[in-house]
Amino acid sequence: MPEETVITKGLIERIGLNDAVFNITVNDEKREEVTDIPNHEVAVKMLLEKLTGYGIINSLDEIEGIGHRVVHGGEVFNESVLITDEVINKIEELSDLAPLHNPANLTGIKAFQSVLPNVPAVAVFDTAFHQTMPESSFLYSLPYEYYEDFGIRKYGFHGTSHKYVSQRAAEMLGRPEEQVRLISCHLGNGASIAAIEGGKSIDTSMGFTPLAGVAMGTRSGNIDPALIPFIMEKTGSTADEVLNILNKKSGMLGVSGFSSDLRDIEMQASEGNERAELALEVFANRIHKYIGSYASRMYGVDAIVFTAGIGENSTLIREKVLQGLEFMGVYWDPARNQVRGKEAFVNYPHSPVKVMIIPTNEEVMIARDVVEKGNI
Amino acid sequence: MPEETVITKGLIERIGLNDAVFNITVNDEKREEVTDIPNHEVAVKMLLEKLTGYGIINSLDEIEGIGHRVVHGGEVFNESVLITDEVINKIEELSDLAPLHNPANLTGIKAFQSVLPNVPAVAVFDTAFHQTMPESSFLYSLPYEYYEDFGIRKYGFHGTSHKYVSQRAAEMLGRPEEQVRLISCHLGNGASIAAIEGGKSIDTSMGFTPLAGVAMGTRSGNIDPALIPFIMEKTGSTADEVLNILNKKSGMLGVSGFSSDLRDIEMQASEGNERAELALEVFANRIHKYIGSYASRMYGVDAIVFTAGIGENSTLIREKVLQGLEFMGVYWDPARNQVRGKEAFVNYPHSPVKVMIIPTNEEVMIARDVVEKGNI
Repeated sequence: MPEETVITKGLIERIGLNDAVFNITVNDEKREEVTDIPNHEVAVKMLLEKLTGYGIINSLDEIEGIGHRVVHGGEVFNESVLITDEVINKIEELSDLAPLHNPANLTGIKAFQSVLPNVPAVAVFDTAFHQTMPESSFLYSLPYEYYEDFGIRKYGFHGTSHKYVSQRAAEMLGRPEEQVRLISCHLGNGASIAAIEGGKSIDTSMGFTPLAGVAMGTRSGNIDPALIPFIMEKTGSTADEVLNILNKKSGMLGVSGFSSDLRDIEMQASEGNERAELALEVFANRIHKYIGSYASRMYGVDAIVFTAGIGENSTLIREKVLQGLEFMGVYWDPARNQVRGKEAFVNYPHSPVKVMIIPTNEEVMIARDVVEKGNI
Repeated sequence: MPEETVITKGLIERIGLNDAVFNITVNDEKREEVTDIPNHEVAVKMLLEKLTGYGIINSLDEIEGIGHRVVHGGEVFNESVLITDEVINKIEELSDLAPLHNPANLTGIKAFQSVLPNVPAVAVFDTAFHQTMPESSFLYSLPYEYYEDFGIRKYGFHGTSHKYVSQRAAEMLGRPEEQVRLISCHLGNGASIAAIEGGKSIDTSMGFTPLAGVAMGTRSGNIDPALIPFIMEKTGSTADEVLNILNKKSGMLGVSGFSSDLRDIEMQASEGNERAELALEVFANRIHKYIGSYASRMYGVDAIVFTAGIGENSTLIREKVLQGLEFMGVYWDPARNQVRGKEAFVNYPHSPVKVMIIPTNEEVMIARDVVEKGNI
């Protein structure tokens, strides 16, 4: 920073097992090591050793800031924040809303704190961007005290991605963000749609948790809530077991019966597999309907953006999603839609509503917030 | 029939209690009697006695057919049907899908059978009209075997009302039903939206049960399914108890905190009650978004229809629902929108999309089906 250059990237998997995998890119070349990494602190120490060991940096003093992606900021955090003891306590309190993610995020934060205690660290929340939603969007029509007492409301996720896409779209359109009504489709293994008006999220498809909204790789998205007790009774399962099915065995995996990976499903569908074709239809249909829904929400739309793995790469899904939207001013070009994985306009030049592909970049958003909030 | 004239109407409430209420209209005048009505068979006998006693008919022989509204026809019934022993067995089998309603409907059917065994009776199903939905609309993105093994899918309800409205709308538009794409908003204490293309339902907001879709008087509509286990844990309730809250303590009652009746809520909102105003916003917002969603589903829309208690009478809700839909060709006229409870066009004459109020009439649809299926 501030050049926004990526000097390395990596991934550490299977921490806690004796065949953990350490991945790092050195001069555009991937290095992988399988070794015993008992905990996150050891992982962080290993990372820092490798950074200097491979000469990616000369000394740990060069590290001026650390960015942490944190899933749930509740109603407490509507923007990124410099991590203090108070912030750590708040993130801990919010674990109630994200029991699988926030404690894991804290483990990472504490591991870096113990190794680099004097380097400013910044928390970037997946929920923060959606904190601008009005109450008519975020409130469920449940007893109001559930909101007051338990924090039950729509939070939304993928906020960092939707925010990046929204800023980049305004730049590509050559218009101030304030004048753009955008529908952002973040379509990966998890998927969410956001209605962004004047740079602010005013509605989004994920809800209290990332289970809600459209169908995803393995998640059901919205279903009739009455199905949970019904499935419990029919299968003799507990509510948590059913929830596990909705999170891990549903979505495209559930409908297709064989895979949660869109590439497998597209391939099988092209070979005539009907259940694969059905999975594609169900997936695209829900997104297609959200686009109409969010255009209504904003009294119209100026641009529709596709991002994340599927959104950036699947010509077929974009085609199915965009089909028949001419009535609301969307004229898309099948030839331009062949693009994969890079910034592009997919609409005909005369189309009142623009359609864009914008590869997401959550890392640069995190880096920018680290520089800003860490006063670097 | 065939003049479609109403010669009487009535209601029997609190059957099984010793202060049951028998209501009947004689020459446009309401007669009410509070008495002991131990069961449905007694209720039916009493009804038939009163019909001749009040001279509404001269003899029971004048009754040529009986129509029964039945809630759930599953995938077995895609139209009304003459009731036979086989039909009764099927309705009984489908009780699994509608445990509160189908057994009650059968009680009524059997009571009439024992009193008027030789009069043809016809069952008219709330789900039948929606059986034309394509699989991409009715299938949940759950494990596919839930559909095969347990019949888990979207069925939709209010079918008789949506069908009536759809036929009447085509007449009012002076166009064949086959050429009309319609969004039908049945807004009563229960509420559902349907996308009707060429006279056929292709999508609807209610689901496996009438709980799904938009917020209603006391029902939540769609929520993040993960909320059910969360509410169970927070409130120490069973899944069935939470389901009961979603059905009876949510919707406008839950948000407003004081009433499920839109008239109360509109009045309180006009006096500055913020929670009442919020309930109106939440209610209208969800319907507004369904309209965009279903316009997308049909690649455009020719007419939007409002029906049932709220749809026919609430100028305010229609106003909030229609606000800002000009981008998709909906130009509605605030002056015309003042109409209550009668057929009317609410759009400006130049509006590409027409907006109509059509009071629903499920009874005439049932009567027509009785004549047809009963060969009368």
